[in-house]
Amino acid sequence: MTAAPETTVSARFLGLLARDLPPDRLTTDPAELAAHATDRSGTPPGGEPLAVVRARRTGDVTVTLRHANALGIPVVPRGAGTGLSGGATAGEGALVLDLSGMNRILELSAEDQLAVVEPGVITAELDRAAGTHGLRYAPDPASAAMSTIGGNIATNAGGLRCAKYGVTRDSVLGLEAVLADGTVIATGRRTVKGVTGYDLTALLTGSEGTLAVITSATLRLRPTPVATATLAAWFDSFETAAEASYAIARAGVVPALAELVDGPVLHAIDPALSERGAALLVVQCDGAGAAAEAAAVARVLAPLASAVQSTEDPVEAEALLAARRLALPALERLGRPLIEDIVVPRSRLAEAVREIRCISARHDVPVFTIAHAADGNLHPIIVVDPTLDRLPDAAWEAAGEIFALALRLGGTLTGEHGVGVLKRQWVADELGPTAHALQRRLKDVFDPRHILNPGKGL
Amino acid sequence: MTAAPETTVSARFLGLLARDLPPDRLTTDPAELAAHATDRSGTPPGGEPLAVVRARRTGDVTVTLRHANALGIPVVPRGAGTGLSGGATAGEGALVLDLSGMNRILELSAEDQLAVVEPGVITAELDRAAGTHGLRYAPDPASAAMSTIGGNIATNAGGLRCAKYGVTRDSVLGLEAVLADGTVIATGRRTVKGVTGYDLTALLTGSEGTLAVITSATLRLRPTPVATATLAAWFDSFETAAEASYAIARAGVVPALAELVDGPVLHAIDPALSERGAALLVVQCDGAGAAAEAAAVARVLAPLASAVQSTEDPVEAEALLAARRLALPALERLGRPLIEDIVVPRSRLAEAVREIRCISARHDVPVFTIAHAADGNLHPIIVVDPTLDRLPDAAWEAAGEIFALALRLGGTLTGEHGVGVLKRQWVADELGPTAHALQRRLKDVFDPRHILNPGKGL
Ligand SMILES: Cc1cc2nc3c(=O)[nH]c(=O)nc-3n(C[C@H](O)[C@H](O)[C@H](O)COP(=O)(O)OP(=O)(O)OC[C@H]3O[C@@H](n4cnc5c(N)ncnc54)[C@H](O)[C@@H]3O)c2cc1C
Ligand SMILES: Cc1cc2nc3c(=O)[nH]c(=O)nc-3n(C[C@H](O)[C@H](O)[C@H](O)COP(=O)(O)OP(=O)(O)OC[C@H]3O[C@@H](n4cnc5c(N)ncnc54)[C@H](O)[C@@H]3O)c2cc1C
Repeated sequence: MTAAPETTVSARFLGLLARDLPPDRLTTDPAELAAHATDRSGTPPGGEPLAVVRARRTGDVTVTLRHANALGIPVVPRGAGTGLSGGATAGEGALVLDLSGMNRILELSAEDQLAVVEPGVITAELDRAAGTHGLRYAPDPASAAMSTIGGNIATNAGGLRCAKYGVTRDSVLGLEAVLADGTVIATGRRTVKGVTGYDLTALLTGSEGTLAVITSATLRLRPTPVATATLAAWFDSFETAAEASYAIARAGVVPALAELVDGPVLHAIDPALSERGAALLVVQCDGAGAAAEAAAVARVLAPLASAVQSTEDPVEAEALLAARRLALPALERLGRPLIEDIVVPRSRLAEAVREIRCISARHDVPVFTIAHAADGNLHPIIVVDPTLDRLPDAAWEAAGEIFALALRLGGTLTGEHGVGVLKRQWVADELGPTAHALQRRLKDVFDPRHILNPGKGL
Repeated sequence: MTAAPETTVSARFLGLLARDLPPDRLTTDPAELAAHATDRSGTPPGGEPLAVVRARRTGDVTVTLRHANALGIPVVPRGAGTGLSGGATAGEGALVLDLSGMNRILELSAEDQLAVVEPGVITAELDRAAGTHGLRYAPDPASAAMSTIGGNIATNAGGLRCAKYGVTRDSVLGLEAVLADGTVIATGRRTVKGVTGYDLTALLTGSEGTLAVITSATLRLRPTPVATATLAAWFDSFETAAEASYAIARAGVVPALAELVDGPVLHAIDPALSERGAALLVVQCDGAGAAAEAAAVARVLAPLASAVQSTEDPVEAEALLAARRLALPALERLGRPLIEDIVVPRSRLAEAVREIRCISARHDVPVFTIAHAADGNLHPIIVVDPTLDRLPDAAWEAAGEIFALALRLGGTLTGEHGVGVLKRQWVADELGPTAHALQRRLKDVFDPRHILNPGKGL
């Protein structure tokens, strides 16, 4: 019996990895393969991956990529697999390159307010380590307790605090990364400013594992604010809550976070919550002006909200934010959530909310919405029956209309989760043909054989 | 008599431009050529440019580039020519593409806190227009009254306020740009967040006219702070002042600006100033917490400074900053300033200052220093005899040692002025060979025939 040519190549590849990697790195254990085949979006990968390399050192990454590139084997870089757009799904014949074991904080400099970390460091752990020096790592995706820094950089993750402190890109000073052919490059620097050469750091940030594998990052840390003030406001309609979020920006206040939760989500978290109002907006202001800013926000919200509650006590503040943090797990109890991630100009937030309600009604698909409201970033979530093995047409159609809405309002398909596989069919609409073509030519420079995360992103 | 082949190509190029551009765009008037041949660094261009195209519309740019690309004519994009690294110098046979006449503010949206502008808009004019809506354009290079937005984006300009508000890149949401072959692309978006596709906006920002010509920009505006508090502190030595700047960061305060001026610069501005101390540090805090933050800064400075003066009055604050703003013109009265632009990690600021003094002494070259201290960005300025037609060897050697020092301290060659022609010979040292090679391959994607600003940047 002769093996099919692909099998031969795969077998040869695995043989080379077994020969050149340290003994504990490579696995083809079916349970491991299954555990590494998709991400938190639950996107079916279409087949079983070939193997998993659990990298522990940059050298493991270079060896793996060198052989994969020579043999044309697809490689899927993977952090914690908390992604929501299918970016880390690994189908038939792909090698999963798991970076979660490269999880050392290599340096934490209180002097220069920076950290150098391996990509597998958990986001919240870096923040905690920084905290012991009076600093923090500002980007805080709601998944911070699970996600990795490498995954955050590869998706340019946003989070709650990015209203004031920016997205992941705004905290990445420099990177070490491995190109498809195994070449190691260093980008950026340890200083807060610098313009020598093109901004490869920004180019790799958000590139969803399609340009290079990130093996280390130099990250900016920021002083922990001296004070934080939190407000929770309840509204009679989600639309009014959206208008209120915009009114904060219009009043010239930049809150640290402004998180919006609609009635159906509140109900999913706890029916008692949804009795308090049809929408909840949690706002935090921080720094030396926290109290004054919170007072200004309260003045803006008062005429629009049915109730406004405020606190400077951190424990009480955490309780107010807890509902927001529970949103996704609560929806996962109802079914498989298909999470969208559109952004609209902040002035169009209420209009977007209104339109999403129409789309939901038109297709008879329930849509639950949470939002990083200060950025105009909405997560409309369609929850589908988890026993179905494909998404129902009505769900896809509603999702497509929501994307079209975002573009029509001057917005974007994805604010922070990335294109992955789920949003690929709409990418060209947003980028336009010339920018799309240019982006593909950039991909060719980094990964001429298209082995890095093929079928994702562009 | 037969013309040399280059002349023929140039003549053909000019003929095509004359045919395809509107009548008032093209000039070969020698006075115009001379006025467009170098930038504020005074770098000699080595020959006379071919012609100047004064673009008024994107269409002028596409026509010009299409013909230039077809015929292999070098094109030097140019804003106001205030650059300090020779980026806009145009030598023998180059076409100058002057964008300063594309100077309309196309949109100013108070609702979405953004502006869409042509590249020739003067930085301070945009800020002024935003001001009428309670907003501002945060990046404020000291040249804001003269420089263009296009030049600011092409250099990723920094400025005084970028300590808190970031550099130009942090305010650019999207761009329209023309590639070398005349293709128009749009990058980015109107929203504050978005991750669809690779970050071409960041890649073009700081690319010094070598990747594409920027023809329009969507810029983020920010609310004007409700309050601003200003401190001026005098020190007995420049080194102590540098230590004091670092102490502010260590204390966890993020000032809006922290500008440092050494004794020799103070003396050049006004001898009476240098009698007040050997160095001046001006710090501004803004926002609702301005007064509290300024008080915290004053507490940090008190044990280090010989005098600290404070004010919340804008007119008095402007008077305190005036000395800083006069620095460069004052030095230009002494000779031709060769302005360096290194950045070091903030903890190394005092060490850098000490080492620069040694370098100055060793080469017997006077070095004047101003600094955007909160970013660790130092401008050591070597003033040379303006009648010399080339820089003396001692000046180059001192400059080279200052670059080496920056790299040794973990810093960068250029924080905001760009590589231009003046820093080219040190670029590879900073980037390293693999990243340098990768950057060149990116250049090839945008500009395969290398017509855009050849010899600059990389
Ligand atoms: C409950 C919940 C809340 C969430 N909240 C947020 C939120 O507030 N904001 C937000 O932005 N996201 C959020 N997410 C989505 C997700 O957590 C982020 O996308 C996160 O950045 C993914 O990190 P990860 O380590 O899990 O990456 P993975 O899911 O493993 O991978 C994500 C992508 O990055 C690539 N990648 C991973 N590591 C590397 C590397 N070292 N080099 C190159 N490419 C790599 C993968 O190929 C893939 O394309 C949430 C998810 C959950 C489940
Ligand atoms: C007194 C003084 C103070 C200064 N202070 C600062 C400061 O605080 N911070 C700072 O960063 N800089 C400062 N500078 C330097 C200079 O003002 C900046 O580099 C500025 O961004 C240049 O803008 P410009 O319009 O003059 O560009 P130019 O000098 O005309 O060009 C600069 C570069 O940009 C390219 N370019 C220009 N327009 C375009 C376009 N539309 N598309 C593509 N490429 C283009 C050119 O080819 C060139 O490489 C100062 C200069 C002076 C004289």
